[in-house]
Amino acid sequence: MQIIHTIEALRAWRKEAGSVALVPTMGNLHEGHLALVREAAKRAQQVVVSIFVNRLQFGQGEDFDRYPRTLEQDAAKLANEGVAVIFAPDERELYPHVAQQYNVEPPNLQNELCGAFRPGHFRGVATVVAKLFNIVQPDFACFGKKDYQQLAIIQGMVADLNFNLQIVPVDIGRAADGLALSSRNQYLNTAERAQAPQLYRELQTIARAVEAGSRDYAGLEKQAVANLSQAGWQVDYVEIRHAGSLQVAHVGDSELVVLAAARLGSTRLIDNIEIRL
Amino acid sequence: MQIIHTIEALRAWRKEAGSVALVPTMGNLHEGHLALVREAAKRAQQVVVSIFVNRLQFGQGEDFDRYPRTLEQDAAKLANEGVAVIFAPDERELYPHVAQQYNVEPPNLQNELCGAFRPGHFRGVATVVAKLFNIVQPDFACFGKKDYQQLAIIQGMVADLNFNLQIVPVDIGRAADGLALSSRNQYLNTAERAQAPQLYRELQTIARAVEAGSRDYAGLEKQAVANLSQAGWQVDYVEIRHAGSLQVAHVGDSELVVLAAARLGSTRLIDNIEIRL
Repeated sequence: MQIIHTIEALRAWRKEAGSVALVPTMGNLHEGHLALVREAAKRAQQVVVSIFVNRLQFGQGEDFDRYPRTLEQDAAKLANEGVAVIFAPDERELYPHVAQQYNVEPPNLQNELCGAFRPGHFRGVATVVAKLFNIVQPDFACFGKKDYQQLAIIQGMVADLNFNLQIVPVDIGRAADGLALSSRNQYLNTAERAQAPQLYRELQTIARAVEAGSRDYAGLEKQAVANLSQAGWQVDYVEIRHAGSLQVAHVGDSELVVLAAARLGSTRLIDNIEIRL
Repeated sequence: MQIIHTIEALRAWRKEAGSVALVPTMGNLHEGHLALVREAAKRAQQVVVSIFVNRLQFGQGEDFDRYPRTLEQDAAKLANEGVAVIFAPDERELYPHVAQQYNVEPPNLQNELCGAFRPGHFRGVATVVAKLFNIVQPDFACFGKKDYQQLAIIQGMVADLNFNLQIVPVDIGRAADGLALSSRNQYLNTAERAQAPQLYRELQTIARAVEAGSRDYAGLEKQAVANLSQAGWQVDYVEIRHAGSLQVAHVGDSELVVLAAARLGSTRLIDNIEIRL
């Protein structure tokens, strides 16, 4: 396994690499990332894991500065996963002019759900992913369903800008108590960690109600928000949406996703659950 | 020479094609385009000429509907130029959802010069060129210097979004009387055609004055606008800019470009001249 820091060296490697599957990450890898890597290894001859904490997708007051940088430990975790290359550029390599000048501008979905609370976040995600696609030129790229809106936006971008690759969505990895795996879980103190699985339980409650026939989506959302708030969460949203488009769900839609974002203390967690009726 | 209409067929061809140079056009080819094709043929094993009248870069009231579509004649002109493929997708092939949802958003330069008179034009150009780059995956792409601002924006996009290709700028082709070759020249009636070379003469006058030592850029611009207006042109702008960045020129800059856009009757012409001091 090589660790490559420059675009030029990555491109030189790429020329001889055959088929490539990319797993874009911000590092601080956990089992959820390793599941992405294992999916990637099934698709292509070579797996590239990119590790880059992308300033462009963090807002004012978000955790860019304290986001954990753990390249050495990440490399150790990937060493036995059949990864060919870790691509770990520094900021000057990806943003030589400090400010990115040309951005990929997603449609209005970028301003909904998480986007309503993180202005510019999905523009920053789409732009860095477009750059990584152009640098690595993968045949496949694996994204976790935990960041469901991100996955939808990347899939939209790939289709609309005609990137020549296939997006591979990968199921959410969860702890034994149901909490979705996330680098941000380590910000939680012991009490918060014990409480955190409630987010998924509320999503499961909604999913069961919908599967049992309820179509009072607004009521179900409101109840979940009330339950979480009462338990001390600051809730950004709980919403039932159409799974493909992420548009507001209509009665009659058969593929749904329930998405939630809420904070415990200063840690913002997201989760979601798909429903097929 | 093949004419390919679908992305899928183009990609299948591309896999076996070796190195490729792309010449993106809106068709209605003239000698200026053929000069681009000849430059392309010097760079790569295969030349692809794309022909697509891109609705996204036309504004309200512009000439999208009357823009000449002349595929048969274009193909005849390219037949002896060593072109491997004409890529001529229809609108539904490039814009299956009618509205493009993900766009490449250039920096504020897109709102200056021609962009001030054609809102959204350079976003539309950047977006369709990004799509063509992702579809054709060329090693080189040739753009004429006549569309100088377009060239600057495409070069910026390629650098900033890390497209893996080299932009080849090609000098302006001119008629014997100096008029820059353009598909829009055919809109000119006989009297307008006779008058049209004045645009280039005014640019030459400015270039000679600057080369002779004048640094009164504002005065030179103003005089050219007055001369053109008096002769019946509706002038959008005449501006002296830094050649690389297209920022407003400062005394001391050694690489300049004088750019102009003006209308004769209903036909909008653009031209420019580079100055190296």
